[in-house]
Amino acid sequence: MEDITEIAILGMGNIGTEFVEILQHQLSEIEDITNQKIKISKILVTDLNKERNVQIKQNIITTNPDEIFNNKNISIVIEIMGGVDPAFEYVSKCLESSKSVITANKDLIATHGKILFQKAKKNNVSILFEAAVASGTPIISTLIRDLSYSNINSIRAIINGTSNFILSEMEEKNTEFMEALKLAQKLGYAEPDPTNDIEGFDARYKLSILSSLAFKTEVEYPKLHVEGISKIDSIDFQYAKELGYSIKLLAIAEKIKSGILARVHPAMIDVNNPLAKISGAMNAIEIQEKLLGTVIIQGPGAGPSPTSSGILSDLIHVLKTKHNSQSVPNLINNLQINDIKTLESRFYLRFIVHDKAGVLSKMSNILGEESISIASVIQKENTNLEEKYADLVFMTYKSSQSSIDKAIQKIAKLDVVDQLKSLIRVE
Amino acid sequence: MEDITEIAILGMGNIGTEFVEILQHQLSEIEDITNQKIKISKILVTDLNKERNVQIKQNIITTNPDEIFNNKNISIVIEIMGGVDPAFEYVSKCLESSKSVITANKDLIATHGKILFQKAKKNNVSILFEAAVASGTPIISTLIRDLSYSNINSIRAIINGTSNFILSEMEEKNTEFMEALKLAQKLGYAEPDPTNDIEGFDARYKLSILSSLAFKTEVEYPKLHVEGISKIDSIDFQYAKELGYSIKLLAIAEKIKSGILARVHPAMIDVNNPLAKISGAMNAIEIQEKLLGTVIIQGPGAGPSPTSSGILSDLIHVLKTKHNSQSVPNLINNLQINDIKTLESRFYLRFIVHDKAGVLSKMSNILGEESISIASVIQKENTNLEEKYADLVFMTYKSSQSSIDKAIQKIAKLDVVDQLKSLIRVE
Repeated sequence: MEDITEIAILGMGNIGTEFVEILQHQLSEIEDITNQKIKISKILVTDLNKERNVQIKQNIITTNPDEIFNNKNISIVIEIMGGVDPAFEYVSKCLESSKSVITANKDLIATHGKILFQKAKKNNVSILFEAAVASGTPIISTLIRDLSYSNINSIRAIINGTSNFILSEMEEKNTEFMEALKLAQKLGYAEPDPTNDIEGFDARYKLSILSSLAFKTEVEYPKLHVEGISKIDSIDFQYAKELGYSIKLLAIAEKIKSGILARVHPAMIDVNNPLAKISGAMNAIEIQEKLLGTVIIQGPGAGPSPTSSGILSDLIHVLKTKHNSQSVPNLINNLQINDIKTLESRFYLRFIVHDKAGVLSKMSNILGEESISIASVIQKENTNLEEKYADLVFMTYKSSQSSIDKAIQKIAKLDVVDQLKSLIRVE
Repeated sequence: MEDITEIAILGMGNIGTEFVEILQHQLSEIEDITNQKIKISKILVTDLNKERNVQIKQNIITTNPDEIFNNKNISIVIEIMGGVDPAFEYVSKCLESSKSVITANKDLIATHGKILFQKAKKNNVSILFEAAVASGTPIISTLIRDLSYSNINSIRAIINGTSNFILSEMEEKNTEFMEALKLAQKLGYAEPDPTNDIEGFDARYKLSILSSLAFKTEVEYPKLHVEGISKIDSIDFQYAKELGYSIKLLAIAEKIKSGILARVHPAMIDVNNPLAKISGAMNAIEIQEKLLGTVIIQGPGAGPSPTSSGILSDLIHVLKTKHNSQSVPNLINNLQINDIKTLESRFYLRFIVHDKAGVLSKMSNILGEESISIASVIQKENTNLEEKYADLVFMTYKSSQSSIDKAIQKIAKLDVVDQLKSLIRVE
């Protein structure tokens, strides 16, 4: 056995509590694997007197982060407080005082990853964040360590368990969005305010992390197009099924000529595509690489235990590699982040139209004017609508987003058209 | 840039050729990532004058392995010759002369892994073998590096692409085994002598490697039960479908009280299980871990490009970690490898019986005597059989392998029973 490695933990919520319990329980095992003695020296909390479900000596709890930053014996800090502020300040200070950092904080890495990686390298310490995407499912390590040599063409991922649970419910049980959301909330899969998950913001943070690692370039998340799932109706699943598709909230990043195109939105995917088969709160990340072909990594997306397992994996890595900064991502490229307008895709468009003669011809004329070819059309009474309205569904061949936008604007002006109810890209 | 790292390659077949081409093509990129200059100094071949599809200077080709073992400037050796003999001798000599080894050789690691790991550690160099299972699909690195802390309960894997292709063909196109095998041979998925793949021997090598890493114990492959797929009939797929199952060649290793139980055999799995959805020559490995839950890694199982990508990943790891032996597996446990007789499982049994009254009652009596409960029975005319014969299918509840064996022996003696045509365990 070598010296004792002292660890500090920032934050003691659900995950912190679970993690400390697991660490205490598996300590001797981890010491055997890493050949090092480990000790939790300090835990930063907001309330010294809170009751906790885990045994911690009172003298290691503190509300003063300086006790951690200034303690030279602490060489590893685990940040599980969440949020960008004050996590960014705290993590920066730890790296600057030559402590390696392990974080499960996707907001932090998505917002300040590049600068934190630089700080780590400058101070010759490590920063690891396996649990920031898909909890302990080994996707970050795969991108950083196993595929570091790689020429990745694309990433397509289901990385928001809440949305995937809701969409799976809607598909399997024919329920409407609100009903599925309520069930997700009841089961603890969705927050009381579900915006972050259902509008795609959570997935966008994660996509910005995955794509920055895959393409070795900074990907500022506000630049990424995002659409959520709250506008999808149960009937869209029926049409999707008829056409041979499932609907998923996909996070997609592709290398294109002029840089990368990354986006989060609902997408129709062929029912035989492995991603179509990822159901419930599960996460899955598909990587397409030039030599390797297609690899899919599937696992839990959240939860105290899987998250703790990701943190543990990082901890062992830091201990084994002796804080070596080699695993810190090098964002050596400076790729352009393209606008969704440059996308070429197939589109599913569902309009509510007045049930009158000539509607189809007027609409297909406009699509023709914008050089959009139609692959399938479904016109049906929608029994959820009043009598005079009907659903008109177009599935296009590959078209540019800008042509589609123009066509939709023109179609909206037709008096026979009530509204565009759904626009779903086809992957 | 630091010093030049000199590399030698043992073997120059399909994979060797592809790998050298890729390495030449991506050299500057790899040098950037690893911050090291790399040079291929020697390549061991069997025929100096063979025409090659890749440009290599004649002076680096040799038929004398001593030129590699004795060259102190060579610090990494990539073994892609295959087979145990002389690969074991050569790899041993490389490790003993303090060279790190990268190998894609599953036979070698399955047969001599433990001793090679010891040699590597003793000489403080590395031995890596990502491409030995599922080509470049990152499963070895996941087990060794990301889940090193883990308490794995089980591994269930589809790790023979040939068998999975044949079974997928039989299932999707209703063809018989021989026809599917011929197609696999025509498409290059199966060898002219397919025994190794279709009888499960290839999967058994790979399972012995995966389970030794997962449970950190030596798993001698000859101790593992193995059954192939050649006895499965197209009609078994029909019954499976009726009962809600698919049939896959699974490699399974579980932790049980008295050690581990590992086996390769055809298995029925619920059609909704993600493993049931792995079709064609694809590989997939499911890992169940105490904290993490279920993770599935899916990717290509073979081929020069994916295999080269696995070797490349290992090469970069060795270069980045400076030959650190920390990544060499520590088989610290000494777990008992249990006999298949200790298995508790559900069973699918298909008998060919004489189409006479009383058959069902005689057979179910015997099953009852052995305390085997029946979950489903299907009795049908099998139109492939002569008129006087019929199929009788039992799906049992969980029973011990030894009870099943006894019952089968008794049933075989019944004059109304022609033969046991299929025994497939249900996962």
